[in-house]
Amino acid sequence: MPRTPAGPELDRLISLLAKLPGLGPRSAKRAALHLLKKRDGLMAPLSLALKEAADKVTACSICGNWDSSDPCQICADEDRETGEICVVQEVADLWALERSGAFKGKYHVLGGVISPLDGVGADDLNIASLAQRASAGGITEIVLALSATVDGQTTAHYLVERLEGLTVDITRLSHGVPVGGELDYLDEGTLAAAMKSRHKA
Amino acid sequence: MPRTPAGPELDRLISLLAKLPGLGPRSAKRAALHLLKKRDGLMAPLSLALKEAADKVTACSICGNWDSSDPCQICADEDRETGEICVVQEVADLWALERSGAFKGKYHVLGGVISPLDGVGADDLNIASLAQRASAGGITEIVLALSATVDGQTTAHYLVERLEGLTVDITRLSHGVPVGGELDYLDEGTLAAAMKSRHKA
Repeated sequence: MPRTPAGPELDRLISLLAKLPGLGPRSAKRAALHLLKKRDGLMAPLSLALKEAADKVTACSICGNWDSSDPCQICADEDRETGEICVVQEVADLWALERSGAFKGKYHVLGGVISPLDGVGADDLNIASLAQRASAGGITEIVLALSATVDGQTTAHYLVERLEGLTVDITRLSHGVPVGGELDYLDEGTLAAAMKSRHKA
Repeated sequence: MPRTPAGPELDRLISLLAKLPGLGPRSAKRAALHLLKKRDGLMAPLSLALKEAADKVTACSICGNWDSSDPCQICADEDRETGEICVVQEVADLWALERSGAFKGKYHVLGGVISPLDGVGADDLNIASLAQRASAGGITEIVLALSATVDGQTTAHYLVERLEGLTVDITRLSHGVPVGGELDYLDEGTLAAAMKSRHKA
């Protein structure tokens, strides 16, 4: 990408903005010009918000969720069921499940999945703390809400073995046709899974 | 948009990121999580880069281009032709022309176009300084590189009238078929303009 004719400060800002997911080199330039136009209304507040979030947001010591309070709002929420733990890969997955409103228990964020190719082993993830929570008593169900990828499923298998022997139900999300999805566009694996777990209409 | 379960600092960061062009509420959340993962490598540097750019980047006192030096690098560049001024609407247009490498003179950034509907008149733009530069002597050509919109063309007409009487050639970009463009997808106005200004193959 040719440099912009605008000095090192602006070049640096653009190259950092281009590292955000969803922004490329071109949209980063557009974003930088937009920011310069809204110096007081957006640029200065954004700089401050980045600094504040970097300083204050930490991983919850219980579940690994990101929040500016520790324990996080979800762990501290007394209205949620404490007997159910939903295990997710990343905080983004927790947010997605919260958007659905379908789960009212607590969460546990692994911080990734086991991936030998990327050099990520079980010890690199928040698995020991999950085993500790699961065996501390009072837990009746652990929902493994991991991605339906090879690494996600490997991790799920590992967790099932690791948590064996505890008097806890271990469940997984069901596979099937996405709501609103057209059959024609679905891959064979999903269709086969949906057919296998068909139920009475 | 439902709030994220993550405290006010993260909520504020997400709502500011969502104001960047190219990012919506959902991609702003993704960007915020990405930033939190790369706290030292990206989040802190971006906060600093925003502050530095906001502090140091100013409009060039000659042409209105944004740069951390004043006069800007283009105005200060002695290798560029000083007799030609290309008039553009925004700094983004200047950057686009610089990418093309087709113009080797100086620029003048208006900072917008005349738009009665938006309450933008000639006095709100850098037009007086353009007239001053044009009449200061040594200028042989002024290229009006304004958008082919109603407001852009209104502004071009106004500039032609305003600069009348000076011994300066005033030119415009040509209309025509975009390079790589398919005729089938072009609007009638562009096709008519391309047909009108056809030339020997």
